[in-house]
Amino acid sequence: MSNQEKPVAPASAQPAQAQYFTGTAWVKMLAGPGNSTDCTVGDVLFEPGCRNNWHSHPHGQLLVVTSGTGYYQEKGQPARLLRPGDTVVIAPEVVHWHGATATDWFAHLAINPSASQGAPVWLEPVTDAEYQAVH
Amino acid sequence: MSNQEKPVAPASAQPAQAQYFTGTAWVKMLAGPGNSTDCTVGDVLFEPGCRNNWHSHPHGQLLVVTSGTGYYQEKGQPARLLRPGDTVVIAPEVVHWHGATATDWFAHLAINPSASQGAPVWLEPVTDAEYQAVH
Repeated sequence: MSNQEKPVAPASAQPAQAQYFTGTAWVKMLAGPGNSTDCTVGDVLFEPGCRNNWHSHPHGQLLVVTSGTGYYQEKGQPARLLRPGDTVVIAPEVVHWHGATATDWFAHLAINPSASQGAPVWLEPVTDAEYQAVH
Repeated sequence: MSNQEKPVAPASAQPAQAQYFTGTAWVKMLAGPGNSTDCTVGDVLFEPGCRNNWHSHPHGQLLVVTSGTGYYQEKGQPARLLRPGDTVVIAPEVVHWHGATATDWFAHLAINPSASQGAPVWLEPVTDAEYQAVH
């Protein structure tokens, strides 16, 4: 189903929390919870078609795209097509989703400042209609 | 002087602040000061032999290595050799330096939580003797 080769999954990556994703994603924590900066960094890989649910972060999040092609969409806004090197600044409490395009793998770093001070707020899945509409 | 080809300098990169570096480095801000997460992200490229001065960060910093070979050293500790994918968590107020090896280019993302709440504290240059000793 992919028009590109599967990227190498990060060594020691774990499947992402399935209840918050449509499709399969893997996460390797590069800097985990409880580190001295209170900023966590994860390397996230999405298979084609995979996206996370609508959600928000109490202290925001930054994404740095490392491979493939994906989308970022804030509620009520057009989606943004993402390629390697692109960076997304997600403001606190803004409802959004991110994930791969239907045909490509997608990987980004997810940077979470003040990680101990509030967990993501997970909402409903991105429906197939919502997902197909951005393509 | 390099045993590998020069990586592509980040588009729109600027020379790093020369007074805090030995040799030349370039910085492209991926998420600059004043963004809604108060966490900045820069893409930093060091030429072979280039390193920054001893310094510390009031709220710490994270490095994610993206290409080449470099070193990270905390004051009084052995240096750590860094390769792509390696991550360094730098605790608040810990005095350290980072930079390329003598023969390779080196690039990392520098992630700065709570960036508006305190600037780095810059100290003396890493001497040639200190630098050569880690090789």
